[in-house]
This record gives sequence, C-alpha cells and structure tokens, in this order.
Amino acid sequence: MNAQPKGRLIGVGTGPGDPELMTLKAVRALGEAEVLAHFAKRGNNGNARAIVAQYLKPDVVELPLFYPVTTEIPHDHADYKAQIQGFYEESAEQVASHLDAGRTVAVLSEGDPFFYGSYMHLHVRLASRYPTQVIPGVTAMSGCWTQAGLPLVQGDEVLSVLPGTMSEFELTRRLADTHAAVIMKVGRNLSKVRRALEMSGRLARAVYVERGTMDNGYSMPLAEKTDDRAPYFSIVLVPGWESRP
Amino acid sequence: MNAQPKGRLIGVGTGPGDPELMTLKAVRALGEAEVLAHFAKRGNNGNARAIVAQYLKPDVVELPLFYPVTTEIPHDHADYKAQIQGFYEESAEQVASHLDAGRTVAVLSEGDPFFYGSYMHLHVRLASRYPTQVIPGVTAMSGCWTQAGLPLVQGDEVLSVLPGTMSEFELTRRLADTHAAVIMKVGRNLSKVRRALEMSGRLARAVYVERGTMDNGYSMPLAEKTDDRAPYFSIVLVPGWESRP
Ligand SMILES: C[S@@+](CC[C@H](N)C(=O)[O-])C[C@H]1O[C@@H](n2cnc3c(N)ncnc32)[C@H](O)[C@@H]1O
Ligand SMILES: C[S@@+](CC[C@H](N)C(=O)[O-])C[C@H]1O[C@@H](n2cnc3c(N)ncnc32)[C@H](O)[C@@H]1O
Repeated sequence: MNAQPKGRLIGVGTGPGDPELMTLKAVRALGEAEVLAHFAKRGNNGNARAIVAQYLKPDVVELPLFYPVTTEIPHDHADYKAQIQGFYEESAEQVASHLDAGRTVAVLSEGDPFFYGSYMHLHVRLASRYPTQVIPGVTAMSGCWTQAGLPLVQGDEVLSVLPGTMSEFELTRRLADTHAAVIMKVGRNLSKVRRALEMSGRLARAVYVERGTMDNGYSMPLAEKTDDRAPYFSIVLVPGWESRP
Repeated sequence: MNAQPKGRLIGVGTGPGDPELMTLKAVRALGEAEVLAHFAKRGNNGNARAIVAQYLKPDVVELPLFYPVTTEIPHDHADYKAQIQGFYEESAEQVASHLDAGRTVAVLSEGDPFFYGSYMHLHVRLASRYPTQVIPGVTAMSGCWTQAGLPLVQGDEVLSVLPGTMSEFELTRRLADTHAAVIMKVGRNLSKVRRALEMSGRLARAVYVERGTMDNGYSMPLAEKTDDRAPYFSIVLVPGWESRP
C-alpha cells in the first residue's frame, strides 16, 4: 500500500475587490484547488470568497474558517489572545487534515497574503510541513490609490503604512514625519485618524477611499466627508510628490 | 467631416516580473492597445516590455521612450532636472499625438503604476486631457517578500518603504523607528544600506532579494551576502511580526 502523497497548500492573493484584478496565476491555482478555505465572520461569507466565485471548480469543497466571536474582549487582553491563538491552531489542523488526505487546499487572502493577511497565521504553522506556494496579489492600498486616480510616491520619497488602530499620538507623530502615508484599518478609528491628520498638518491632502475597486467603490477628500462613519473596507491616503516636475 | 474621437490612455501595471503575475485586466488591456509605450534605457528593451511580450496584439505599434543619458550629471543638479523634465514633456507629446489620432495607447509600468513608477510623469501631463484608465499591479515588494517566503507585517505594525537613495543618517533613523521596512532602489546603495541596517540594529533580520519572481530570482539573509554588488532589480526587506502568536 502506497502512502498517500501530501497535498499542496496555496495562499492565494485575491487582489482588492475587482475580480478582474486577480492575477493569471491566482486564477489558475483556483482552477486546481480541491478545497477552498477562507476566513470569515459568522453570518457573512466574506469578501474574498465573493471575489473568486466565478473562478472555482464546480465540485470544490468549501472550508470557511469562522473567527470566534470576541467583540466583548479587548484585543490586548490575555483571554482574547488565547482564544484567537486557539482558533488559528484549530484552523491550521483542519487545513492539515485535507493536506494529509492528499488534497490541494487554496486559502484565500484579500489583497496580498503576506501583507496584514490572516493567511500568515496558517502559513507559519503549515509551510514547513507541506509543499506550499504563495501567490502575491494587488494590495488594497494599490486598488485604493488607483480608484482615487492618485499617484502616491515618486523618487526619493518615504511611504509609511500605518494601521488606524495605533494610538493618536503615534499616528500624529508618524504622519508628521513622512512624505506619503497609507492608513489601513480605518473603520471605527476614523475620528481619531482625522484628528491625527489635522494635528500633523496633513488633513488637506488626505483622501478617503471606500470599497476601492469593488462595486460602489468611491473616493473623496477626507476634509469634505462630513461624518466619521467608515466601513471595514476603507482606507485613508496621503500622497507625496508635492513638487512634481 | 467628423472629428476623430480621442484615443484612450491606459497605464498598465505589469507586476514584478513573472508574466503570470499580471492581472486579467492588464492582459485584456494589452490585447486592446494599438500603441505600446514603455520607458527604457537606450540599448536595453526594458523589463516591462519583456514581461508583456506574449500578451501583445501582433500589429501593435511600439513607442519606446528612451531616458536621456544623464549618468554624468548629479541627480540634484538643475541641468539634470531640466533634461529629465524636457524628456517627460516630449514623451507626453509623443503619446498625445497617438491619442489625438484616436489610438488606444498602453503605457507599461513595472509593478504598480502609481508606486514609484515613471508612468506617473505621463499621467499628470495627460490624464486631464484624454480618457484615462490605470490598472494597478502587484508591486515589486510583494513579489519580493513572496519570493523570500517572508510574511511581512501583521496586526498593528508599521511598514516603512524607504528608497536606498536616502542619506545614511535618514535611513538609519527610520529603520530604528519602524516595525518592518522595505528598501527600494538598492542597486549602488547596498553598502550604505548595510551600514544603516547595522547601526539601527536591524541587519540580522534583513533579507536581500534579487530579481523577485523573475527567472533566476533568489533571496538570502543580507548578513550572509559577502559582497555589496546589487543590480537594479534588488530590494532589502526587514520583516515585522517578531512576536507571532
Ligand atoms: C487585514 S487588512 C488586509 C490587507 C490585505 N491583505 C492587503 O494586501 O491589502 C484589512 C484592511 O485593508 C483595507 N482594505 C482591504 N480591502 C479594501 C478595499 N477594497 N477598499 C478599501 N480598503 C480596503 C481596510 O483598511 C481593511 O481594514
Ligand atoms: C522605480 S521603482 C519601481 C517600483 C514599481 N512601480 C513597483 O510597483 O514596485 C524600481 C525599484 O523597484 C525594485 N524592483 C522592481 N522590480 C523588482 C524585482 N523583480 N525584484 C527586486 N526588486 C525590484 C528595485 O528596488 C528597483 O530599484
């Protein structure tokens, strides 16, 4: 009796939202995957899953990985860390059992897998145990500055990518000390982000982008946005290149 | 007699090198382009042109835009600035004459067009005059951290993108004050980049990537690289995520 050869793990970057912004390589990988895993919130099939819908094998086995409900626990609390770590361990073992059965498993990641992506948590647990391939994708920030028609950085300029979850002081300090900035994870942090931009003197150039490259995606100067509501899929951009030749 | 309708300008991100990392949208645009423009050094057809070779219309008109030879003039010199600006003006007018004749012109950009790309210089001169579309691409840095198998940033971490052309002091200061870093434009700057990494205490984690996702692309710990030779297509990465859960 032959030992079943191990399956292949593929981390697939789906790009920012428009299904046509997937790479040829990602589309090919999806056509080969026997199992499709993706992270999602319960009651919500996830955006990455929607992006790839048209490229899947008809008989693909779906493996949604539902985040535990942790909204009541602060993210820096030990209980939160233990829960989320347990969730990643369990998810990795679910994926591993398909790989042990010889199946090719694609794990979706919005944008690029190695850039703030949940796939990274599976990768560090599995890549040393199974043949693994990662397919880079167009990042959300690239999708967003394109949606806004906004050339972002040129020449000798510095770009700072800042999560909106940082403290107001840190955000302000870093915004004051960079040519260009991308603020990710804006969502509930928009009023703080706005204050940090104001204090660092960068508000006038800041552009708000919602659902970049997706249906109904749009952009506007942040200074003209009259409320501080922002969904999960939103970003703030501060372009450099103030002295264009 | 009808006025000829204006042609369409398309800034096409080609991705980092592997032709399969082009997006479906970029491939479609190339299939529609009547004129293909790309920036290149004289005597060298350019990398972006090589990436797209297999996706072009057989009768496409080629418009290579050759950088003026300026190696003898320092880049911060007024003569250099005047020459390069004249070159961008002239290039924009060459593209404009095709657009005026009603032709669709694709301008290639390695990686993503709005991220340190020469296409930006045409975009700011033409986008207000002609129907224009930009197609984002997988950036060189995404291609490079994927080539290296290196998850780059997670959670609340800051990423700093630093051109290797900056002063050693500035590089050092910024490397000491970020979770993760990408150093672009390494080429002739590698010995300076190495010193800045050493002084900021980041050399041990730094990874050197040459020709990411291209044929013969490879990566290695920078500390193990015994010389300071680096070609144009090279990058240095410092991953964050030191405390992975
Ligand atoms: C966990 S990060 C994932 C980043 C992704 N891996 C990438 O390569 O861009 C999620 C954040 O990306 C941003 N984002 C993702 N897609 C977006 C889109 N289409 N428009 C605006 N922001 C988006 C939001 O700021 C969101 O909070
Ligand atoms: C003018 S910038 C262009 C960046 C591009 N628009 C992007 O989106 O990544 C050129 C620099 O990108 C980096 N680069 C581009 N392609 C690369 C590759 N395949 N491997 C390593 N570095 C690369 C090098 O550092 C080079 O000096």
